[in-house]
Amino acid sequence: MKVRNILGERFKEAPKDCTIESHAFMVRGGYMRYMSNGIYSLYTPGKRIMQKIEAIIRDEMDKIGGQEVMFPVVMPASLWEESGRYTSIGSEMARFEDRSKNKMVLGMTHEEAAVHLARDIANSYTDYPFMIYQIQTKFRDEPRARGGLIRVREFTMKDAYSFHTSMEDLQEYYKDCHKAYENIYKRAGAKNVISVASDSGMMGGSVSHEFMLLSEIGEDTLAICSDCDYKSNMEAAECITEPLNSEVKQLEKVHTPETKTIEALSEFLHIKESDLCKAVVYQKNEDDKYIIVFIRGDLEVNETKLRNYLGAEIHPAVEITEESGIVAGFIGPVNSKANARMVFDKSLIGMNNVICGANEIDYHYVGANLERDYGKKIEYVDVAKIYEGAACPCCGHKSITIEKGIEVGNIFQLGTKYTKSMNMTYLDKDGKQQYPIMGCYGIGVGRLAASICQESHDDYGPIWPITIAPWQVEICALRADNEQVKDFADKLYTELQNKGTEVLYDDRDVRPGAMFADADLFGIPVRVVVSPKNLEKNVVEISLRDKSLKTEFSVDTAVEDILALVKKEFEKYAL
Amino acid sequence: MKVRNILGERFKEAPKDCTIESHAFMVRGGYMRYMSNGIYSLYTPGKRIMQKIEAIIRDEMDKIGGQEVMFPVVMPASLWEESGRYTSIGSEMARFEDRSKNKMVLGMTHEEAAVHLARDIANSYTDYPFMIYQIQTKFRDEPRARGGLIRVREFTMKDAYSFHTSMEDLQEYYKDCHKAYENIYKRAGAKNVISVASDSGMMGGSVSHEFMLLSEIGEDTLAICSDCDYKSNMEAAECITEPLNSEVKQLEKVHTPETKTIEALSEFLHIKESDLCKAVVYQKNEDDKYIIVFIRGDLEVNETKLRNYLGAEIHPAVEITEESGIVAGFIGPVNSKANARMVFDKSLIGMNNVICGANEIDYHYVGANLERDYGKKIEYVDVAKIYEGAACPCCGHKSITIEKGIEVGNIFQLGTKYTKSMNMTYLDKDGKQQYPIMGCYGIGVGRLAASICQESHDDYGPIWPITIAPWQVEICALRADNEQVKDFADKLYTELQNKGTEVLYDDRDVRPGAMFADADLFGIPVRVVVSPKNLEKNVVEISLRDKSLKTEFSVDTAVEDILALVKKEFEKYAL
Repeated sequence: MKVRNILGERFKEAPKDCTIESHAFMVRGGYMRYMSNGIYSLYTPGKRIMQKIEAIIRDEMDKIGGQEVMFPVVMPASLWEESGRYTSIGSEMARFEDRSKNKMVLGMTHEEAAVHLARDIANSYTDYPFMIYQIQTKFRDEPRARGGLIRVREFTMKDAYSFHTSMEDLQEYYKDCHKAYENIYKRAGAKNVISVASDSGMMGGSVSHEFMLLSEIGEDTLAICSDCDYKSNMEAAECITEPLNSEVKQLEKVHTPETKTIEALSEFLHIKESDLCKAVVYQKNEDDKYIIVFIRGDLEVNETKLRNYLGAEIHPAVEITEESGIVAGFIGPVNSKANARMVFDKSLIGMNNVICGANEIDYHYVGANLERDYGKKIEYVDVAKIYEGAACPCCGHKSITIEKGIEVGNIFQLGTKYTKSMNMTYLDKDGKQQYPIMGCYGIGVGRLAASICQESHDDYGPIWPITIAPWQVEICALRADNEQVKDFADKLYTELQNKGTEVLYDDRDVRPGAMFADADLFGIPVRVVVSPKNLEKNVVEISLRDKSLKTEFSVDTAVEDILALVKKEFEKYAL
Repeated sequence: MKVRNILGERFKEAPKDCTIESHAFMVRGGYMRYMSNGIYSLYTPGKRIMQKIEAIIRDEMDKIGGQEVMFPVVMPASLWEESGRYTSIGSEMARFEDRSKNKMVLGMTHEEAAVHLARDIANSYTDYPFMIYQIQTKFRDEPRARGGLIRVREFTMKDAYSFHTSMEDLQEYYKDCHKAYENIYKRAGAKNVISVASDSGMMGGSVSHEFMLLSEIGEDTLAICSDCDYKSNMEAAECITEPLNSEVKQLEKVHTPETKTIEALSEFLHIKESDLCKAVVYQKNEDDKYIIVFIRGDLEVNETKLRNYLGAEIHPAVEITEESGIVAGFIGPVNSKANARMVFDKSLIGMNNVICGANEIDYHYVGANLERDYGKKIEYVDVAKIYEGAACPCCGHKSITIEKGIEVGNIFQLGTKYTKSMNMTYLDKDGKQQYPIMGCYGIGVGRLAASICQESHDDYGPIWPITIAPWQVEICALRADNEQVKDFADKLYTELQNKGTEVLYDDRDVRPGAMFADADLFGIPVRVVVSPKNLEKNVVEISLRDKSLKTEFSVDTAVEDILALVKKEFEKYAL
């Protein structure tokens, strides 16, 4: 393809809303165009990257026996009512009524559709196991679309669903899928992808992993042990604290004026934050009822863990009413008159001598012993955020490091959540009815493209791995008005294409600086410069976009040499 | 792929709702599954057919310089408000509000998105012409989904948009696109596809063509001249009638009791229906105002032509109120007190002596001369349906034949309807601002697949052209429990695949009858039967699905012979 024909514009200044590099480059390079919040159109270079990633995914899914199918984007609400998710999922699912007033939804995931496609069909144990997948448009009404294709509302996703007759079989297949995902990232040129244990969230099921591309701009926080293999999304990481076994003391109320924050209180009393019992107030989304979480003063609440424990959506308390009996700034578990559910984090276990709010303005208790003073049996749960230097839940060493990651894929062991609720059964060997066990496996294609761009760029543009680059070779003809240059570059363009190479050809009459700036934004791995000066020396100039190579090829062997270089580039990403 | 592994069920009895063969076969053969009115999931065989058609389309679009892009499925209503179609399109466009109460629509066509992608980018005449296309899911809330994939609500469509700086350039490109469409149908194996002039409907613009696959189950009615090249959708075909030049007579009111229908009246008065002036009453959708169409008694009103003339949506009158002044059954243009707009079809021109309602119960006029008796200047318009044996609007011969067709593609010269309304401009050579001229070009992928199945099947299943068949060769291993059979069939399966052939392999332990019934439903062009009996003779049995060949190949040369046969099948669909 010729640069002069490509619809799209390349420009220098990043638009103001592009706060991360990949977003800026993909807008500046003419890959995509904003249409609405979290909704983009793709120009040809962007579309080509997507197609290449899709082809890699398709290949790896087929290799583990996947059958490509197609589910609808628009589905009847009735199907989602069967699984219960029509009500359990909130406003992130788009809904509308069709012309006959039937309730419809836009697919944001397709477990229900997968069960619908397979039930009544796979009704004997001999039909199992199988895996079906699709690559299709999805819409999720994200409250915070951001980062270009990193977090959008409409996206292309590969989603796969496997069905099994035993947990062992699912677990085996889950491993195969884990491996297939590793292959996909390797082949697509995503370098720093790790898999971490994850929270299963709205998907149901228990065991699940997220594939995280490590990146400072990642929205996910990961806990990684530097001493063992432990890797987890912070949302799923257990926070282990040691019991302090401090000396038991008498409960005593002390005057602590103007000490509404942990910092103020610890300064006022000259104690460490970890000696305090902090209170954090939440409200349930559905009825605004209060929840007070008590946690050691130096720790933070992990809202996902809290949400999972409560089995309900929550938000930080917006306003604390007088009728609630909650005395903001001075909340404590002892002698509380608060009309609220109380949750005790495990970090409080064994704190015999603790400082907490006295539920009275300007007063705190010191020397509290929760077991003794609370008056009721306490159930401790883990709702604390793991932190840098925390004990590893696996090896126990204080070797947890915290990193940021972009989720570029996830795999779930779903179990029978959907097959049970949607009544999908099969007859086992003994003629007994059973529910199949499911797994599901997702990759967002656009997010992966953007993440690779984020990981692989320099100051001037993306450095696309050759396996997903929109074209493999770019020919820059400097002074295409020069007949010799034009002839040679034209010939090179034709011959390389005839040999099956994807070539982008810039024969525009623009200054070298502008041409190279555009080439940097296109990010094509192999660059060939044809110029009067080079041709005089009977060479063309060759460079790799990642700057690892800059050389000259003889014009006589240029085609073969370029083909060999392309082949070598591909080998970098071979399994 | 092995038949035993494919998710899907093949069965004998067509479901009751399958009234056409292609629908029945595609359900019975495990190609698709009904989810909701006009919404289907596709199993792997169905998905593979779609992908092959898409690849052919993609190739032909690329050959005429198309750039593949991607538009969103979900778009902001504001974009459609710019073009005016947010209000002009009715309930066939799905609409919803997102979580922030923004109005959104589901794309049923993408002219607005195409302009959005190109405007501000293509702002110099040197950027033109260009064509962008996508292959993407669309949703159109059809009132009457039917025929399986023939008419659905959710569908995959290739839609292309070209932009030009002159009408001549558009017309040239339009021809290229017309040719590309012919190539697509030929390559995909659709045999009886013709292009007809069409009504542009809601798309705007003037010149347009539909590609029609001739079929009795087609919903479109076509007027085709058997003497010249004229071919038109009935909705766009001019109906030419000869002036009768009958003798002028006196206007006379006659008593015609109980003659509310044309048949009753012509019988009562012993005259031909073509001597009558018939009245047909419609109402505007927006305000229920009446429209009376006067037309020669033997002709029918073409509602599309009427709609286009009025520039408004209409429906046959549901109820005629007393206040309207319309005397149902006795409506005529002379001395009418009807509160209605009157439309006169061209067929009435020159009818000097006509019988029409007298706007009085049980009375008609005879000897009416509209020019003389109506009292106002009459504007005649063409709103009549063309009919079998009518005069050809092109050559004038009475050689019009009427056929049925399925619309499998359409191309439109849009002009500046969208670029003007959405303010897309470029600077021409003289630095003057101009609106680009657009064309648009659509093909429904699923409908084409179903239409080819409809055209190409026998009593037992589809006969897929090899270019779009889900697999190219099917191996049926009869008695796969026989070691020799299994070994040979396995080897054949592997070797053919290694040579790049797509093979479906049935090694199930089922009776030959069941295996062949399934094979017929799979419709794979080349069938290879491996059986103990054949192997004894050192041969495999070869047949084509369309029954044009049944032979034996030696086991020694089977691989090469099958590859040659596959190649020959492909040649049938080569350009």
